[in-house]
Amino acid sequence: MIRDPDALARACAEAMAAGDRASAGLGMVLESVGPGRAVMRMTVTEAMVNGHGICHGGFIFTLADSAFAYACNSHGARAVAQHGAITFLRPARRGETLRAEAVERIAAGRSGLTDVRVTGADGEVVAELRGQSRLTGGHFFNPEEG
Amino acid sequence: MIRDPDALARACAEAMAAGDRASAGLGMVLESVGPGRAVMRMTVTEAMVNGHGICHGGFIFTLADSAFAYACNSHGARAVAQHGAITFLRPARRGETLRAEAVERIAAGRSGLTDVRVTGADGEVVAELRGQSRLTGGHFFNPEEG
Amino acid sequence: MIRDPDALARACAEAMAAGDRASAGLGMVLESVGPGRAVMRMTVTEAMVNGHGICHGGFIFTLADSAFAYACNSHGARAVAQHGAITFLRPARRGETLRAEAVERIAAGRSGLTDVRVTGADGEVVAELRGQSRLTGGHFFNPEEG
Amino acid sequence: MIRDPDALARACAEAMAAGDRASAGLGMVLESVGPGRAVMRMTVTEAMVNGHGICHGGFIFTLADSAFAYACNSHGARAVAQHGAITFLRPARRGETLRAEAVERIAAGRSGLTDVRVTGADGEVVAELRGQSRLTGGHFFNPEEG
Repeated sequence: MIRDPDALARACAEAMAAGDRASAGLGMVLESVGPGRAVMRMTVTEAMVNGHGICHGGFIFTLADSAFAYACNSHGARAVAQHGAITFLRPARRGETLRAEAVERIAAGRSGLTDVRVTGADGEVVAELRGQSRLTGGHFFNPEEG
Repeated sequence: MIRDPDALARACAEAMAAGDRASAGLGMVLESVGPGRAVMRMTVTEAMVNGHGICHGGFIFTLADSAFAYACNSHGARAVAQHGAITFLRPARRGETLRAEAVERIAAGRSGLTDVRVTGADGEVVAELRGQSRLTGGHFFNPEEG
Repeated sequence: MIRDPDALARACAEAMAAGDRASAGLGMVLESVGPGRAVMRMTVTEAMVNGHGICHGGFIFTLADSAFAYACNSHGARAVAQHGAITFLRPARRGETLRAEAVERIAAGRSGLTDVRVTGADGEVVAELRGQSRLTGGHFFNPEEG
Repeated sequence: MIRDPDALARACAEAMAAGDRASAGLGMVLESVGPGRAVMRMTVTEAMVNGHGICHGGFIFTLADSAFAYACNSHGARAVAQHGAITFLRPARRGETLRAEAVERIAAGRSGLTDVRVTGADGEVVAELRGQSRLTGGHFFNPEEG
């Protein structure tokens, strides 16, 4: 059983990343992970541009949602998103590298709230996501053996 | 100038679609569009699967957000998403074709609310998105000539 | 056991109203109730005015939240609000009578979404609430005897 | 003109409080205020109880919304709520004193996001509100003279 919270967060992230075709396919890189937090980066490609010539909001949400998932799945128990609310503050341009920093705000029973800030190349905030998670009852590792 | 609301909605959608690399790249198909409404379909591919083995919520959001965009950009004036809140109701599986139906709920001044229901192959609801839009001041066609 | 859905909705509303000091104290009147729907009215009093000289948004939310509660507690099972998102579209003035119409959008397992539209004296939309409910496991009447 | 940000926040709060019948009528007390932050307290009275025998969520929202308003109106420019999303985490009981702490998360152009945590007598979190504000263009004091 993994007792160190940082080591547990890294082990959960590795287990998640092994099957996470979605994040990998979009070029996301998990920069760091810890108990209740995660930082991911992604560069806006030509394929992410929408009909207004800027990054489709869906990809900004997807980056934030991935960071959210690594943050709230960092304690050993499997959690899924139940609700997510995103505020778009400024457009993201093609070629720009976005950074999403997720920090768990609260965990109460089986529910949790995690806030994710997405910033652009200049450090300005592109979007803010608040995600509500719910524990599924499953675990990444056998709780007995770890 | 395009006076028929249905013809205008189709013309706006064509103008949007021309530059919408994001929706096309994910295999989305615009099934229908009209004044304040749009229906899009997308099939969950292997590349959209997350670390829990189901469709990454970000792609469900992206499909819903595209339908939202076609619905709220159907009146000739350009609108962007300012806020989006999504509730995830059941997982989507790889290979499943999702259908997103967007219906404008209200337009008040420069703001609008559009609701999008995402259903799975069995017709069950996968997710519900409520998006808040804001007019940018731009138009798809010259308001004088259309 | 009450088998007629309309009669059940009315019976649940009566059971709720008996203890609902909050709605009564604010002068709310339940205009109608049915399976998954409710309409309530409230007049903005002097006591509801905020520092900007208009109705405090909290009272608009409270009216909408009451209509939400009567709508999602209309099937015999007790439900509570888990999340509520409100968009304020225009101010409400003192003396104005507001009308909140709640319609259940979906019920999936123990969760549900109910939309509430609040309109002013002129019929214009003042606010839109989307509430997420969760069944508590309790019931208004003994399911055996009803 | 008031140049000290703390003094300005207190002056704005006094100007707001003078007309804020709603917060006063519910027994709210502004414990502290500063640039982009405010703390308010309110005791759950008999009149705030709903049909489930607990504090009506609307009053929890109203307390959080008041703290939000004092926080985002602390810089001299008038701001109103455009959107508010609240997550209810545990019920509040009659007689319990609730504390709402609002902290501005970001201000970008005319928009802002402010987070409010509502805690109960035991320090446990009762609810979390995220409010989106918008500047009206008005000011509390003549910008020339202050």
